[in-house]
Amino acid sequence: MHELRKDPILNRWVAVLKDSKPPHYYLGKDIDHVERDTDCNKCILCRGKEDKTPQEIFAIREIGTPPNTPNWQTRVVPKPNPIFQIEGDLGRRGIGMYDKMNSIGANEIIVESPSHDTHPEDSGITQMINVMTTYKNRVSELEKDPRFRYTFIYKDCGKTAGELYHHPHSQVIATPVIPKGIKEELDGAKAYYYYKERCIYCDILSEELRTEERIIMETKNIIAFSPFAPRLPFEFWIVPKRHTCAFQDIHDDEMEDLSLILMTTIKKMRNLFKNPSYNYVLHTAPNRMPRKDHWHTLGEDFHWHMEVTPHLVTKSGFEWDSEFYILTTSPEDAAKHLKEV
Amino acid sequence: MHELRKDPILNRWVAVLKDSKPPHYYLGKDIDHVERDTDCNKCILCRGKEDKTPQEIFAIREIGTPPNTPNWQTRVVPKPNPIFQIEGDLGRRGIGMYDKMNSIGANEIIVESPSHDTHPEDSGITQMINVMTTYKNRVSELEKDPRFRYTFIYKDCGKTAGELYHHPHSQVIATPVIPKGIKEELDGAKAYYYYKERCIYCDILSEELRTEERIIMETKNIIAFSPFAPRLPFEFWIVPKRHTCAFQDIHDDEMEDLSLILMTTIKKMRNLFKNPSYNYVLHTAPNRMPRKDHWHTLGEDFHWHMEVTPHLVTKSGFEWDSEFYILTTSPEDAAKHLKEV
Repeated sequence: MHELRKDPILNRWVAVLKDSKPPHYYLGKDIDHVERDTDCNKCILCRGKEDKTPQEIFAIREIGTPPNTPNWQTRVVPKPNPIFQIEGDLGRRGIGMYDKMNSIGANEIIVESPSHDTHPEDSGITQMINVMTTYKNRVSELEKDPRFRYTFIYKDCGKTAGELYHHPHSQVIATPVIPKGIKEELDGAKAYYYYKERCIYCDILSEELRTEERIIMETKNIIAFSPFAPRLPFEFWIVPKRHTCAFQDIHDDEMEDLSLILMTTIKKMRNLFKNPSYNYVLHTAPNRMPRKDHWHTLGEDFHWHMEVTPHLVTKSGFEWDSEFYILTTSPEDAAKHLKEV
Repeated sequence: MHELRKDPILNRWVAVLKDSKPPHYYLGKDIDHVERDTDCNKCILCRGKEDKTPQEIFAIREIGTPPNTPNWQTRVVPKPNPIFQIEGDLGRRGIGMYDKMNSIGANEIIVESPSHDTHPEDSGITQMINVMTTYKNRVSELEKDPRFRYTFIYKDCGKTAGELYHHPHSQVIATPVIPKGIKEELDGAKAYYYYKERCIYCDILSEELRTEERIIMETKNIIAFSPFAPRLPFEFWIVPKRHTCAFQDIHDDEMEDLSLILMTTIKKMRNLFKNPSYNYVLHTAPNRMPRKDHWHTLGEDFHWHMEVTPHLVTKSGFEWDSEFYILTTSPEDAAKHLKEV
């Protein structure tokens, strides 16, 4: 038996199996496990190979060392063969009944570790804070370009998650339009705000703290929990307790808590499913400059957060097309397993 | 270099690589090829195993033969372990700030061939017409249940497409709500209709026939073409020329043309990519009874069609979350390759 649940932000219904499958059910299937890889001969992201990448845009490095030299902890470089070009104008135009524009935007690689096979969550909290600080720098910097409407930071880890390199990295994409998936989330949150005059994410946090059924981990500033109606089994969200629409407005103590929670929950997920492929994405407010006047509610209706999705199952054509997802483990059980491991 | 294109129905931007990758680029990557499988010992869908499935709901079979006996061409049975239950009421209710309901709906398997390893497109036009006629029967029948809002028919072929059985089959899901992915398409078409007072699919067909750049195949009644801003490389749509919102209103000559075009384009795609995993889905109007009054424009704004998507690439976290897809082959080049093969 399943029950249907509605995601309150996107108004998306999902079916949740009442008799949840335990973690070993997924291990018996075809999970793509991320293997160790110590052969870094061809890797261009390793420390010491700074001349193999385009010139660095930002780095957290030993004070006083020049750019593009080895003494860095995290490093940001333009993506080779980028999807979006940094130079040029948008050139929006019609062609027959259709619309086109130039692919103007930014496409960067954030190298998360100097070492080829050491993930930042295995290096300890300082390196996780370095990675999050790098994210903050990129969102803050890219917001200044008036051609960009949105900055998207994400990590693809493992083959079925679409990873580009084995070397630990995330990617930055700044786009000249707000991507459809993000716009729906903003619109959903705005609709709730107009109705309730409250942020929907703040309300979700209150509800989750009240029932405690889906909470995986909590610190003073940040909560990790399984959402009520997720897309994928064992999906979880990481949300700050303080209402803030934009990730770049994060405080230092929140940054420490975020790093701790992301590090711990990723290790829990890796532990439970023997290093599965996974994605995580940062959902933050659209770039606020120079369109501050268009951001009607001054950021009161949106709340930055991260969404983490392990790849444990194959989607059917029904799920892919209808966005009606079938969950073989309830979020309550997923949270319990992730909490306890 | 890429260019950005907007899907006119969903207002979804995608990035299209200007220097398109040819078909052999994908063959060199990790396409999941559907292998032949002649071992049907465990298959419950083969002719002669009628006692292994739940009782049949519908079949195209030799006249005079009783249900659940071998002489059938297509056969519909309830899905074992269904996601949706046919019995019961919806029981919509709130739980805290969230919404739930019972998983009421239909979940059926359409067996497309009596033989374990013979696809309907390889059996010839008569069998394809049998399959399409079975689809028509299911949509017509399920529309009569006032609890169901939408009937979704889809095929998952191959492992990465999420197939349930090797034996050729498609699935039917009737849902008590309109799935989010479908609602967006209906809303997009409705918005266009209010603005232009024309069906957007009819306008797209005119545009495609005018430019001829993306047409793969055309008959008197049906057109197959690559859409201007697809989600996946080599995705194509099959659309009737006559405006009809509901698939079940299809005429016999359209049914013949649809069967011919679906059979031919699937064989072209299989040929080009050595039997890749793929999905196709039927997009039809929501169930019109007993809510005819809610269907404001009386079906003038929607147009049934099929969408076919081969699985040639792995989606990144960016695409998965933002719905901003990156196309490595332009639809113009994809149509050219599919037309010529």
